[in-house]
Amino acid sequence: MTDNKTLPIGIFDSGIGGLTVVKEIRKRLPNENIIYLGDTARVPYGTKSSSTVISYSLSNAAFLSSHNIKLLVVACNTASAFALDSLKSSLNIPVIGVLEPGAIKAVETTTNNVVGVIGTPSTIKSEAYREAVSRIDPNITVHTKSCPLFVPLAEEGWIDDPISEQVAARYLKPLIEKKIDTLILGCTHYPLLKRLIQSVVGDDIKLVDSAEQVTTQTLNILEELGIKNPENKSGNKQFHLTDISDSFLSIAASFLGEQINGIKQIDIISA
Amino acid sequence: MTDNKTLPIGIFDSGIGGLTVVKEIRKRLPNENIIYLGDTARVPYGTKSSSTVISYSLSNAAFLSSHNIKLLVVACNTASAFALDSLKSSLNIPVIGVLEPGAIKAVETTTNNVVGVIGTPSTIKSEAYREAVSRIDPNITVHTKSCPLFVPLAEEGWIDDPISEQVAARYLKPLIEKKIDTLILGCTHYPLLKRLIQSVVGDDIKLVDSAEQVTTQTLNILEELGIKNPENKSGNKQFHLTDISDSFLSIAASFLGEQINGIKQIDIISA
Repeated sequence: MTDNKTLPIGIFDSGIGGLTVVKEIRKRLPNENIIYLGDTARVPYGTKSSSTVISYSLSNAAFLSSHNIKLLVVACNTASAFALDSLKSSLNIPVIGVLEPGAIKAVETTTNNVVGVIGTPSTIKSEAYREAVSRIDPNITVHTKSCPLFVPLAEEGWIDDPISEQVAARYLKPLIEKKIDTLILGCTHYPLLKRLIQSVVGDDIKLVDSAEQVTTQTLNILEELGIKNPENKSGNKQFHLTDISDSFLSIAASFLGEQINGIKQIDIISA
Repeated sequence: MTDNKTLPIGIFDSGIGGLTVVKEIRKRLPNENIIYLGDTARVPYGTKSSSTVISYSLSNAAFLSSHNIKLLVVACNTASAFALDSLKSSLNIPVIGVLEPGAIKAVETTTNNVVGVIGTPSTIKSEAYREAVSRIDPNITVHTKSCPLFVPLAEEGWIDDPISEQVAARYLKPLIEKKIDTLILGCTHYPLLKRLIQSVVGDDIKLVDSAEQVTTQTLNILEELGIKNPENKSGNKQFHLTDISDSFLSIAASFLGEQINGIKQIDIISA
């Protein structure tokens, strides 16, 4: 697969939350070329049914595949929960979701075998994290809690804020009471609230950040297949959104940790 | 237009917020047949660009028109802001948006000529309310504030809640400081937070509820055109969503103020 090495990694999310994954990949795999698709015209996926999420995910993957990617990262928990099997069977490249790497890390981390998961209502309702953890170790008890206000709070930039702290305290109290020792941040927006969440749950509870874990798995697969980009220069980045609004642009930079230039709007919906 | 009298009123919204309008129409026009379309597969519109919102609105209207409606209510502020002209020129029935009725009522209500408007980021950014108020009375000063957390708070059901109160206090403080005496609730979700908002701004500031105003305008137009339904029986209701999820169903009842039966999922996107 020598010829594939310089091809880009494709990453999609329902919106801009997946930029936290891009940020992590850029940090640890700075040579890799990246093409990102945020399906902002159809965001959020978290409130939509599985058949709708699968159909959206396949059209996102088709767009990225047309750019000749060597690996696909599904940087959206809802899409990872509902559409990963469909994506794997329709593509002939490695497909990595955010769910499994987080589940593996949580199983490695817990010492009392009681793990918590927070996410959007749809991710939580899908029970995908519970099932992923149970597949690895059926002895682990998983407690879940949906946190619908965390995404808008992160997008408001109320990161270090008494209101966000009260919301976090209310959402996380039931999990703390269940004596979890490990908490999976099951949404790509949540790394922005990581410090706040850590302060609410206390240092005895370890947080599992999906963005970090999916990057580790990406690195491992690139090495296993021998398709890491050998070029000794900073990889290029391409950003595509299905809809561009000013509010997204202003938030996107805080998710990525750097300015974003040259975002292109594409139409994959009426295609 | 005698034959039209028993035809349904068509109502669409990006999601379920428009059910607050249905509730108000049911209360004051109980004989009318209603067909509702919530575009839950593509919700929210508030973060999307004007061209996307226009395209979605036209496909919603096409669906409702295929059910032979006598009047269209656009129960979505973003769609009213961006798509009303396109809808009016593509349909040969009356089209009522939520913007203008709210603006008219605000102009009637204010005594100090300082009006506030709250809404989603996109509604506020569109400046549509400011322009609608200025068209009626250019002497009125309009101050606006986007309140992105109000929709998820309403959907969480945190209606009478200290967290929602703090969020409301933070959002509304700049408007109170501007000495507004009238506040337009520029989003169909906000009637659920009406009591909370009133308590934060105090009784000296009058709230303008779009759901009430659009119903008044609907009633007026039906009477002017002589197309009120004369049947002496309770009108029937049909509810269509472009995507059905459990979370929507559980919230929808609280918006409508009654149980919802027989919701149908339709596909207008791939059509």
